[in-house]
Amino acid sequence: MKFYEDIAAGEKAEIGRYTFTAEAIKKFAARFDPQAFHLDEEAAARSHFGALCASGWHTASVWMRFMVDYQHREDGVRAQRGEAIVPMGPSPGFRELKWLKPVYVGDTITYAYEVLDKRPSVSRPEWGLMTIGNTGTNQKGELVISFVSTAFLARRGSAA
Amino acid sequence: MKFYEDIAAGEKAEIGRYTFTAEAIKKFAARFDPQAFHLDEEAAARSHFGALCASGWHTASVWMRFMVDYQHREDGVRAQRGEAIVPMGPSPGFRELKWLKPVYVGDTITYAYEVLDKRPSVSRPEWGLMTIGNTGTNQKGELVISFVSTAFLARRGSAA
Repeated sequence: MKFYEDIAAGEKAEIGRYTFTAEAIKKFAARFDPQAFHLDEEAAARSHFGALCASGWHTASVWMRFMVDYQHREDGVRAQRGEAIVPMGPSPGFRELKWLKPVYVGDTITYAYEVLDKRPSVSRPEWGLMTIGNTGTNQKGELVISFVSTAFLARRGSAA
Repeated sequence: MKFYEDIAAGEKAEIGRYTFTAEAIKKFAARFDPQAFHLDEEAAARSHFGALCASGWHTASVWMRFMVDYQHREDGVRAQRGEAIVPMGPSPGFRELKWLKPVYVGDTITYAYEVLDKRPSVSRPEWGLMTIGNTGTNQKGELVISFVSTAFLARRGSAA
Protein backbone atom coordinates (compact mmCIF):
# COMPACT_ATOMS: atom_id res chain seq x y z
CA MET A 1 0.00 0.00 0.00
CA LYS A 2 0.90 3.63 -0.39
CA PHE A 3 0.90 5.98 2.54
CA TYR A 4 -2.24 8.04 3.03
CA GLU A 5 -0.36 11.17 1.94
CA ASP A 6 0.52 9.61 -1.45
CA ILE A 7 -3.01 8.88 -2.63
CA ALA A 8 -5.18 11.45 -4.35
CA ALA A 9 -8.94 11.49 -4.89
CA GLY A 10 -9.62 10.66 -8.54
CA GLU A 11 -6.83 8.07 -8.74
CA LYS A 12 -8.13 5.05 -10.63
CA ALA A 13 -6.93 1.82 -12.18
CA GLU A 14 -8.01 -1.48 -13.63
CA ILE A 15 -6.99 -4.18 -11.18
CA GLY A 16 -7.71 -7.38 -13.11
CA ARG A 17 -9.88 -9.42 -15.49
CA TYR A 18 -11.43 -12.79 -14.74
CA THR A 19 -13.42 -15.19 -16.91
CA PHE A 20 -15.96 -17.15 -14.88
CA THR A 21 -15.98 -20.86 -15.80
CA ALA A 22 -18.78 -23.29 -14.97
CA GLU A 23 -16.31 -25.21 -12.80
CA ALA A 24 -15.31 -22.17 -10.70
CA ILE A 25 -18.95 -21.01 -10.39
CA LYS A 26 -20.08 -24.44 -9.13
CA LYS A 27 -17.11 -24.85 -6.78
CA PHE A 28 -17.76 -21.55 -5.00
CA ALA A 29 -21.52 -22.19 -4.91
CA ALA A 30 -21.13 -25.71 -3.51
CA ARG A 31 -19.28 -24.25 -0.52
CA PHE A 32 -21.01 -20.91 0.04
CA ASP A 33 -24.16 -20.44 -2.05
CA PRO A 34 -25.74 -23.78 -3.03
CA GLN A 35 -28.71 -22.43 -4.93
CA ALA A 36 -29.74 -24.45 -7.98
CA PHE A 37 -29.03 -21.66 -10.50
CA HIS A 38 -25.39 -21.54 -9.30
CA LEU A 39 -24.92 -25.33 -9.33
CA ASP A 40 -26.76 -26.94 -12.21
CA GLU A 41 -27.13 -25.86 -15.84
CA GLU A 42 -30.58 -27.38 -16.32
CA ALA A 43 -32.04 -25.97 -13.12
CA ALA A 44 -30.51 -22.59 -14.00
CA ALA A 45 -32.16 -22.70 -17.44
CA ARG A 46 -35.53 -23.03 -15.71
CA SER A 47 -34.81 -20.22 -13.23
CA HIS A 48 -35.35 -16.46 -13.62
CA PHE A 49 -31.65 -16.20 -14.61
CA GLY A 50 -32.07 -18.48 -17.64
CA ALA A 51 -28.56 -19.96 -17.42
CA LEU A 52 -25.86 -20.91 -14.91
CA CYS A 53 -24.50 -17.80 -13.21
CA ALA A 54 -22.07 -16.95 -10.44
CA SER A 55 -22.95 -16.29 -6.81
CA GLY A 56 -22.79 -12.57 -6.15
CA TRP A 57 -20.39 -13.34 -3.28
CA HIS A 58 -18.14 -15.09 -5.77
CA THR A 59 -18.10 -12.01 -8.00
CA ALA A 60 -17.26 -9.89 -4.96
CA SER A 61 -14.59 -12.28 -3.61
CA VAL A 62 -12.77 -12.27 -6.96
CA TRP A 63 -12.61 -8.47 -6.63
CA MET A 64 -10.90 -8.90 -3.24
CA ARG A 65 -8.32 -11.23 -4.75
CA PHE A 66 -7.49 -8.79 -7.52
CA MET A 67 -7.28 -5.89 -5.08
CA VAL A 68 -4.80 -7.79 -2.88
CA ASP A 69 -2.73 -8.88 -5.90
CA TYR A 70 -2.77 -5.32 -7.23
CA GLN A 71 -1.49 -3.96 -3.91
CA HIS A 72 1.23 -6.62 -3.81
CA ARG A 73 2.35 -5.70 -7.35
CA GLU A 74 2.38 -2.03 -6.41
CA ASP A 75 4.40 -2.88 -3.29
CA GLY A 76 6.90 -4.71 -5.50
CA VAL A 77 7.34 -1.66 -7.71
CA ARG A 78 7.86 0.55 -4.66
CA ALA A 79 10.32 -1.90 -3.13
CA GLN A 80 12.37 -1.84 -6.33
CA ARG A 81 12.48 1.94 -6.10
CA GLY A 82 13.65 1.66 -2.49
CA GLU A 83 10.41 3.23 -1.21
CA ALA A 84 8.76 2.29 2.08
CA ILE A 85 6.08 -0.42 2.00
CA VAL A 86 3.16 -0.17 4.39
CA PRO A 87 0.65 -2.95 4.93
CA MET A 88 -3.02 -2.58 3.98
CA GLY A 89 -5.01 -1.45 6.97
CA PRO A 90 -8.20 -3.03 8.25
CA SER A 91 -11.38 -2.49 6.25
CA PRO A 92 -14.34 -1.30 8.27
CA GLY A 93 -16.77 -2.47 5.56
CA PHE A 94 -18.51 -1.34 2.40
CA ARG A 95 -21.64 0.41 1.29
CA GLU A 96 -24.18 0.06 -1.47
CA LEU A 97 -23.09 -3.24 -2.96
CA LYS A 98 -25.16 -3.73 -6.11
CA TRP A 99 -25.35 -6.84 -8.26
CA LEU A 100 -26.62 -5.18 -11.40
CA LYS A 101 -26.50 -8.02 -13.94
CA PRO A 102 -25.96 -11.78 -13.64
CA VAL A 103 -22.46 -13.09 -14.35
CA TYR A 104 -22.87 -16.06 -16.70
CA VAL A 105 -20.44 -18.82 -17.67
CA GLY A 106 -17.83 -17.38 -20.01
CA ASP A 107 -18.36 -13.78 -18.97
CA THR A 108 -15.12 -11.85 -18.51
CA ILE A 109 -15.34 -9.26 -15.75
CA THR A 110 -12.97 -6.32 -15.65
CA TYR A 111 -12.52 -4.95 -12.13
CA ALA A 112 -11.52 -1.35 -11.50
CA TYR A 113 -11.39 1.17 -8.67
CA GLU A 114 -11.44 4.90 -8.23
CA VAL A 115 -10.52 6.81 -5.08
CA LEU A 116 -13.59 8.92 -4.31
CA ASP A 117 -12.46 10.64 -1.15
CA LYS A 118 -9.88 10.60 1.63
CA ARG A 119 -9.77 12.06 5.11
CA PRO A 120 -7.78 11.64 8.34
CA SER A 121 -9.25 9.15 10.80
CA VAL A 122 -10.60 10.85 13.90
CA SER A 123 -10.57 7.72 16.07
CA ARG A 124 -7.18 6.43 14.87
CA PRO A 125 -4.80 9.34 14.18
CA GLU A 126 -2.07 7.01 12.82
CA TRP A 127 -4.38 6.11 9.93
CA GLY A 128 -6.18 7.93 7.16
CA LEU A 129 -9.45 6.75 5.69
CA MET A 130 -10.01 6.32 1.96
CA THR A 131 -13.34 5.86 0.19
CA ILE A 132 -13.15 3.82 -3.01
CA GLY A 133 -15.68 3.20 -5.76
CA ASN A 134 -15.28 -0.35 -7.09
CA THR A 135 -16.77 -1.77 -10.25
CA GLY A 136 -16.92 -4.96 -12.29
CA THR A 137 -17.87 -4.66 -15.96
CA ASN A 138 -18.58 -7.52 -18.38
CA GLN A 139 -17.30 -7.93 -21.93
CA LYS A 140 -20.38 -6.09 -23.28
CA GLY A 141 -19.52 -3.04 -21.20
CA GLU A 142 -22.35 -3.70 -18.72
CA LEU A 143 -21.73 -2.98 -15.05
CA VAL A 144 -22.36 -6.24 -13.14
CA ILE A 145 -21.22 -5.23 -9.65
CA SER A 146 -20.48 -1.96 -7.91
CA PHE A 147 -19.82 -1.04 -4.33
CA VAL A 148 -18.18 1.61 -2.21
CA SER A 149 -15.47 0.43 0.16
CA THR A 150 -13.59 2.19 2.90
CA ALA A 151 -10.05 1.35 3.94
CA PHE A 152 -7.54 2.58 6.46
CA LEU A 153 -4.15 3.74 5.18
CA ALA A 154 -1.10 4.32 7.34
CA ARG A 155 0.01 7.96 7.60
CA ARG A 156 3.61 8.94 6.98
CA GLY A 157 5.52 9.15 10.23
CA SER A 158 2.97 7.07 12.10
CA ALA A 159 3.72 3.80 13.88
CA ALA A 160 0.87 2.00 12.06
CA MET B 1 -38.85 -19.39 0.46
CA LYS B 2 -42.17 -18.14 1.69
CA PHE B 3 -44.39 -16.03 -0.48
CA TYR B 4 -44.15 -12.27 0.01
CA GLU B 5 -47.58 -12.26 1.65
CA ASP B 6 -46.46 -14.74 4.33
CA ILE B 7 -43.56 -12.69 5.74
CA ALA B 8 -44.00 -10.00 8.36
CA ALA B 9 -41.68 -7.20 9.40
CA GLY B 10 -40.12 -8.10 12.74
CA GLU B 11 -39.78 -11.80 11.87
CA LYS B 12 -36.37 -13.00 13.04
CA ALA B 13 -34.39 -16.18 13.49
CA GLU B 14 -30.94 -17.62 14.13
CA ILE B 15 -29.79 -19.27 10.93
CA GLY B 16 -26.58 -21.04 11.99
CA ARG B 17 -23.36 -21.13 14.02
CA TYR B 18 -19.89 -21.64 12.62
CA THR B 19 -16.51 -22.04 14.30
CA PHE B 20 -13.69 -20.63 12.17
CA THR B 21 -10.68 -22.95 12.06
CA ALA B 22 -7.18 -21.94 10.98
CA GLU B 23 -7.50 -24.38 8.09
CA ALA B 24 -10.75 -22.86 6.76
CA ILE B 25 -9.46 -19.29 7.25
CA LYS B 26 -6.27 -20.03 5.28
CA LYS B 27 -8.08 -21.95 2.54
CA PHE B 28 -10.48 -19.09 1.81
CA ALA B 29 -7.69 -16.51 2.05
CA ALA B 30 -5.38 -18.44 -0.28
CA ARG B 31 -8.04 -18.24 -2.98
CA PHE B 32 -9.66 -14.85 -2.39
CA ASP B 33 -7.83 -12.69 0.15
CA PRO B 34 -4.13 -13.62 0.38
CA GLN B 35 -3.09 -11.04 2.96
CA ALA B 36 -0.49 -12.21 5.47
CA PHE B 37 -2.76 -11.84 8.53
CA HIS B 38 -5.25 -14.27 6.94
CA LEU B 39 -2.59 -16.82 5.88
CA ASP B 40 0.16 -17.06 8.45
CA GLU B 41 0.06 -17.12 12.25
CA GLU B 42 3.42 -15.43 12.75
CA ALA B 43 2.79 -12.64 10.27
CA ALA B 44 -0.66 -12.13 11.81
CA ALA B 45 0.88 -11.84 15.28
CA ARG B 46 2.99 -8.94 13.99
CA SER B 47 0.01 -7.22 12.27
CA HIS B 48 -2.53 -4.78 13.73
CA PHE B 49 -4.87 -7.79 14.24
CA GLY B 50 -2.42 -9.56 16.56
CA ALA B 51 -3.44 -13.08 15.51
CA LEU B 52 -4.69 -15.05 12.51
CA CYS B 53 -8.18 -13.89 11.54
CA ALA B 54 -10.71 -14.56 8.80
CA SER B 55 -11.16 -12.53 5.63
CA GLY B 56 -14.26 -10.37 5.97
CA TRP B 57 -15.48 -11.90 2.69
CA HIS B 58 -15.18 -15.31 4.31
CA THR B 59 -17.32 -14.21 7.26
CA ALA B 60 -19.89 -12.85 4.80
CA SER B 61 -19.83 -15.92 2.54
CA VAL B 62 -20.51 -18.22 5.50
CA TRP B 63 -23.62 -16.11 6.18
CA MET B 64 -24.77 -16.78 2.60
CA ARG B 65 -24.32 -20.52 3.07
CA PHE B 66 -26.39 -20.52 6.27
CA MET B 67 -29.10 -18.39 4.67
CA VAL B 68 -29.43 -20.81 1.74
CA ASP B 69 -29.44 -23.85 4.07
CA TYR B 70 -32.01 -22.15 6.30
CA GLN B 71 -34.30 -21.50 3.33
CA HIS B 72 -33.91 -25.10 2.17
CA ARG B 73 -34.84 -26.39 5.64
CA GLU B 74 -37.86 -24.09 5.70
CA ASP B 75 -38.84 -25.33 2.25
CA GLY B 76 -38.65 -28.91 3.54
CA VAL B 77 -41.01 -28.11 6.41
CA ARG B 78 -43.47 -26.47 4.03
CA ALA B 79 -43.26 -29.35 1.56
CA GLN B 80 -44.14 -31.78 4.37
CA ARG B 81 -47.20 -29.67 5.14
CA GLY B 82 -48.16 -29.77 1.45
CA GLU B 83 -47.58 -26.01 1.07
CA ALA B 84 -46.27 -24.37 -2.09
CA ILE B 85 -42.49 -23.83 -2.38
CA VAL B 86 -41.21 -20.79 -4.20
CA PRO B 87 -37.59 -20.25 -5.14
CA MET B 88 -35.50 -17.44 -3.65
CA GLY B 89 -35.58 -14.44 -5.92
CA PRO B 90 -32.57 -12.52 -7.15
CA SER B 91 -30.78 -10.25 -4.68
CA PRO B 92 -30.17 -6.72 -5.88
CA GLY B 93 -27.43 -6.20 -3.31
CA PHE B 94 -26.48 -5.09 0.17
CA ARG B 95 -26.04 -1.94 2.15
CA GLU B 96 -23.87 -0.91 5.05
CA LEU B 97 -21.77 -4.02 5.48
CA LYS B 98 -19.69 -3.51 8.61
CA TRP B 99 -16.86 -5.70 9.81
CA LEU B 100 -16.96 -4.61 13.44
CA LYS B 101 -14.48 -6.99 15.10
CA PRO B 102 -11.91 -9.45 13.74
CA VAL B 103 -12.95 -13.12 13.61
CA TYR B 104 -10.06 -15.12 15.11
CA VAL B 105 -9.27 -18.82 14.98
CA GLY B 106 -11.69 -20.68 17.26
CA ASP B 107 -14.32 -17.93 17.30
CA THR B 108 -17.85 -19.25 16.94
CA ILE B 109 -20.10 -16.88 15.04
CA THR B 110 -23.87 -17.02 15.41
CA TYR B 111 -25.67 -15.65 12.36
CA ALA B 112 -29.19 -14.23 12.61
CA TYR B 113 -31.58 -12.15 10.57
CA GLU B 114 -34.55 -9.86 11.15
CA VAL B 115 -37.03 -8.65 8.53
CA LEU B 116 -36.90 -4.86 8.75
CA ASP B 117 -39.36 -3.95 6.04
CA LYS B 118 -41.28 -5.24 3.03
CA ARG B 119 -42.94 -3.59 0.08
CA PRO B 120 -44.26 -4.51 -3.37
CA SER B 121 -41.76 -4.13 -6.19
CA VAL B 122 -42.67 -1.29 -8.53
CA SER B 123 -40.56 -2.51 -11.45
CA ARG B 124 -41.45 -6.22 -11.08
CA PRO B 125 -45.09 -6.60 -9.98
CA GLU B 126 -44.77 -10.40 -9.62
CA TRP B 127 -42.25 -9.86 -6.81
CA GLY B 128 -42.20 -8.17 -3.44
CA LEU B 129 -39.08 -6.69 -1.92
CA MET B 130 -37.91 -7.48 1.59
CA THR B 131 -35.26 -5.61 3.61
CA ILE B 132 -33.37 -7.77 6.09
CA GLY B 133 -30.97 -6.89 8.88
CA ASN B 134 -28.25 -9.56 9.15
CA THR B 135 -25.82 -10.05 11.98
CA GLY B 136 -22.97 -12.29 13.09
CA THR B 137 -22.10 -12.34 16.80
CA ASN B 138 -19.14 -14.05 18.44
CA GLN B 139 -19.11 -16.23 21.56
CA LYS B 140 -18.47 -13.15 23.73
CA GLY B 141 -21.65 -11.53 22.44
CA GLU B 142 -19.74 -9.04 20.28
CA LEU B 143 -21.17 -8.13 16.89
CA VAL B 144 -18.50 -8.99 14.27
CA ILE B 145 -20.47 -8.38 11.06
CA SER B 146 -23.70 -6.63 10.19
CA PHE B 147 -25.31 -5.68 6.93
CA VAL B 148 -28.66 -4.90 5.39
CA SER B 149 -29.75 -7.05 2.48
CA THR B 150 -32.64 -6.77 0.09
CA ALA B 151 -34.28 -9.74 -1.61
CA PHE B 152 -37.10 -10.32 -4.03
CA LEU B 153 -39.90 -12.67 -2.95
CA ALA B 154 -42.54 -14.13 -5.26
CA ARG B 155 -46.08 -12.87 -4.65
CA ARG B 156 -48.96 -15.29 -4.29
CA GLY B 157 -50.75 -15.83 -7.58
CA SER B 158 -47.81 -14.50 -9.62
CA ALA B 159 -45.97 -16.47 -12.27
CA ALA B 160 -42.58 -15.75 -10.65
